Amino acid sequence: MEKLPKCGANYTPLSPVMFLKRASMVYSHRTSIIYKSTHFTWNQTHQRCLCLASSLRSLGITKNDVVSVLAPNIPAMYELHFGVPMAGAVLNTINTRLDAANVATLLAHSEAKLLFVDYQFVPLARQALCHLPSSAASPAVIVIDEIDDPTGIRMDGGLEYEQLISGGNPDEAAYEVEDEWDAIALNYTSGTTSAPKGVVYSHRGAYLSVMSLLLQWGVGNQPVYLWSLPMFHCNGWTFTWGMAARGGTNVCIRTTSAAEIYRAISDHGVTHMCCAPVVFNIILEASPADRCPINARVEVLTGGAPPPAALLEKIEQSGFHVTHAYGMTEATGPALVCEWWAEWDLRPAEEQAALKARQGISALALEEVDVKDVKSMESVPRDGRSLGEVVLRGSNVMKGYFKNEKDTNAAFKGGWFLTGDVGVIHPDGYLEIKDRSKDVIISGGENISSVEVETVLYRHPMVVEAAVVAMPHPRWGETPCAFVALARDEGGEQQRVREEEIINHCRNNMARFMVPKKVVFMEELPKTSTGKILKFELREMARKLKPFEMITTQPATWNKMGFSTENKKQKIPNPITI
Amino acid sequence: MEKLPKCGANYTPLSPVMFLKRASMVYSHRTSIIYKSTHFTWNQTHQRCLCLASSLRSLGITKNDVVSVLAPNIPAMYELHFGVPMAGAVLNTINTRLDAANVATLLAHSEAKLLFVDYQFVPLARQALCHLPSSAASPAVIVIDEIDDPTGIRMDGGLEYEQLISGGNPDEAAYEVEDEWDAIALNYTSGTTSAPKGVVYSHRGAYLSVMSLLLQWGVGNQPVYLWSLPMFHCNGWTFTWGMAARGGTNVCIRTTSAAEIYRAISDHGVTHMCCAPVVFNIILEASPADRCPINARVEVLTGGAPPPAALLEKIEQSGFHVTHAYGMTEATGPALVCEWWAEWDLRPAEEQAALKARQGISALALEEVDVKDVKSMESVPRDGRSLGEVVLRGSNVMKGYFKNEKDTNAAFKGGWFLTGDVGVIHPDGYLEIKDRSKDVIISGGENISSVEVETVLYRHPMVVEAAVVAMPHPRWGETPCAFVALARDEGGEQQRVREEEIINHCRNNMARFMVPKKVVFMEELPKTSTGKILKFELREMARKLKPFEMITTQPATWNKMGFSTENKKQKIPNPITI
Repeated sequence: MEKLPKCGANYTPLSPVMFLKRASMVYSHRTSIIYKSTHFTWNQTHQRCLCLASSLRSLGITKNDVVSVLAPNIPAMYELHFGVPMAGAVLNTINTRLDAANVATLLAHSEAKLLFVDYQFVPLARQALCHLPSSAASPAVIVIDEIDDPTGIRMDGGLEYEQLISGGNPDEAAYEVEDEWDAIALNYTSGTTSAPKGVVYSHRGAYLSVMSLLLQWGVGNQPVYLWSLPMFHCNGWTFTWGMAARGGTNVCIRTTSAAEIYRAISDHGVTHMCCAPVVFNIILEASPADRCPINARVEVLTGGAPPPAALLEKIEQSGFHVTHAYGMTEATGPALVCEWWAEWDLRPAEEQAALKARQGISALALEEVDVKDVKSMESVPRDGRSLGEVVLRGSNVMKGYFKNEKDTNAAFKGGWFLTGDVGVIHPDGYLEIKDRSKDVIISGGENISSVEVETVLYRHPMVVEAAVVAMPHPRWGETPCAFVALARDEGGEQQRVREEEIINHCRNNMARFMVPKKVVFMEELPKTSTGKILKFELREMARKLKPFEMITTQPATWNKMGFSTENKKQKIPNPITI
Repeated sequence: MEKLPKCGANYTPLSPVMFLKRASMVYSHRTSIIYKSTHFTWNQTHQRCLCLASSLRSLGITKNDVVSVLAPNIPAMYELHFGVPMAGAVLNTINTRLDAANVATLLAHSEAKLLFVDYQFVPLARQALCHLPSSAASPAVIVIDEIDDPTGIRMDGGLEYEQLISGGNPDEAAYEVEDEWDAIALNYTSGTTSAPKGVVYSHRGAYLSVMSLLLQWGVGNQPVYLWSLPMFHCNGWTFTWGMAARGGTNVCIRTTSAAEIYRAISDHGVTHMCCAPVVFNIILEASPADRCPINARVEVLTGGAPPPAALLEKIEQSGFHVTHAYGMTEATGPALVCEWWAEWDLRPAEEQAALKARQGISALALEEVDVKDVKSMESVPRDGRSLGEVVLRGSNVMKGYFKNEKDTNAAFKGGWFLTGDVGVIHPDGYLEIKDRSKDVIISGGENISSVEVETVLYRHPMVVEAAVVAMPHPRWGETPCAFVALARDEGGEQQRVREEEIINHCRNNMARFMVPKKVVFMEELPKTSTGKILKFELREMARKLKPFEMITTQPATWNKMGFSTENKKQKIPNPITI
């Protein structure tokens, strides 16, 4: 077979930025963005992004420069996803929930040339710039004012976003991607356990992630997408670019309050949204005043901890159809999607919830997902029981960690990306995460999955938050220790449940060796700014505690025991101060 | 931004073969293929393809060798789409409707090392091998016997397909694609106007076409796909590979008879099928004995000539939902898809048919589709009226024509692939094909789209086939000449309509300059083996005819004229002999 060379007609470097140009041609008059009273069409969005790219170049931004942004889900945040790479630069969206010192760390590490700041985050940005180490160059700052109702807030007399748009030249051709392996985005991990790492995405990886996620989630044409997931999370799980591919409408909201979510769904006919399971609680706990009728089914893609069955049932009864996914910054968002088989609809509700809580099958763009013993790199049996580390490989795995060869090399082993998560593969090929590898509790030689214990805890009617970590045990080495927050009554008071009632509930629902030997009640569990439970803090606490059995006299008769005063003494104070 | 190198974890050459390995892991127990009483799961299909690849290598097949196949839509044909590239070889599916001389031409040109032949096509293959030029090496032949009910037919004591499967080693690793630009398939154009050209697809192009088509046609999970489109047409518009990506069920049928189609839909719950519009007639004209109830909507993707509104309405009333596409071998199948907007459902039926008959918007994998004046390469205005040539560029355009540098260079101009088709772009970005560029009739300096005239002819209640070509005209240079076949009565007799009635119908429905000046009635229009009307034959005939007005005395009073005996004399004899 002869060589037939690539040419302009048959080879285009893959880049999700392409979707915008196409949208401007084939969805030109359709609505691209809705935010308060602002509406744009795809043609307008394209023009605005061309202007933005042109202005960025006028400001000296060039290939591979990092452009950072601190903003909620507003139109400018969406436009930056195209405008920045259209200037050849790399987009770095920063988690707005970080504190000033963290923001400064990221700005210094990324060597950002420019920082876009939404007007509400000007105080945070000011503080962050003060925290910048003297060795770091300070980025130029551009404020993004409220588009509907400008406040006039500026930083040090600097530029405002709309000035860049109006001053740009829409006829200046956008930067053309030469090599699809070039960087498009830099996203820092949230760093639950270590310093944040800068994950670099290529144009190719982002493009293929978009295609594969749209396909697996079944995003048809004309989606109306609600931005309930921050765009700073893996570029909105790549749906920023994805909406341009489908000619969808981006419904932007500044906060994920119940009122904003209900209103957006009702006013604009939202068809799709992504969110963490915690948003289900926001929706379900909405006051009557905040609610609007939901007339058509809303597809919801959710990640993170699998929502408990009861929560899943409630949210689906409210008009939402949930698809569960699993991912991480390093995999350009979702790496596994729990594709649903029609025949599962006939199973009992509890079994359906268990099926839905599984993380699912590999994203199409991945070559393979497996569960391995990472010492031998042997695959575990597909029996739904054998634990191993979840490993991935394929086109939507990051290029690597920015300026961090050590962690990059540690993450890639033998042609696989090691997720650090522990899971099993069921005989039907569906993967289920059992734990973060560091969260596995090894008790008497047995591996205990803390997620499994947490799942049982969540089934207790009074438990609203639960986390299980290892605590030291003189005989077994480690033993599970549970931290729980209880439901509140109508007056906002937390319910009271006795420790042994929780332990008994566990004994009735899991293998004996897995039962927590200690339950600690808290007002609220300590979390990161992105809502992840800070297990290392809990682990610190657990280290100082004693198993319940060691402070009671009749370990075999939980049912009859009175409330332990010793437990009360050990109760952790109000965790809001943590 | 530092360089971060590609590695096994984050870079995989794109290939649609990957979908099969993934399917074997994540859809392992789901049904992959149904054919008569044969059922396979995805795990079995993967194992069989590994065996096939292993046996092909034992037979000496190696990278870039061409493996040809002459077969209908049977399981082996499906398996060859994976097994051949899994041996590193290039698949060449041959149109089974070609005659022996044509098949011989393709075998010689492709330098096929191996030829797979379905038992029904053994006589054709035997003849073709006799036609091979003495300079060409004769390929080894492997018969594919009926899997359900073996006939024992073999060629010259050669191997049978199932022997390759059972003799292969499923543990032998499949060939790993090193460069995604390598060839995966060689498909010859049907050659309506010239010698067949060998279109080469890359692994990359095929992969991206699969993703983009599945997405745009909205193929969700668990599709049940009926093979009503020959797999030898652009590898079944890439849905061969596509079904592995979605874990779908391939329902294989040997012929596209009404009985087979209805039974498959009814027995297996078909959700998707592709076909030429002519299949709509097969479905609608089915005898009551061949019909089965259609309980759920079947999605149909159709290409080629836009189906007339009346036909579209009838087929949709029968339970099929039609999406119109446009493509060509060179674009790995569909290049444009007519995505439907929900708001169009509110338009009058006739307007809906007109919207649906448009070819639509670019396939997602294409960077761009445009309509240009190919002399200046300027884009035409997007006004729905300005004609130009349809040009494409992007990742699903072929690598080029095999051993045909001249035609490859002619097809690629200034970074675009020239389709040779003439169209317009509507203000909403939707493209509508008006004609093959060589089919445009230039009359008195005005371009006349023959498709436009044909569309009006089809609206006449008695017309079932229509084609319009240029005929010489002493005053206007060229003028349209219509060839039509009329409907038949219950006894199978063609209806009789007078020439002036047809001309009058045209005068009432189009601009005067476009009205055909001659109408020729035929039993049936001459067509290629793939059902394309042979316009060049009609053009030959038209060259010998005279305009109607020149053989009548009262050209201005069509309505009152009697039937012209001269016309009768000029009526072309039974075209079945053509």
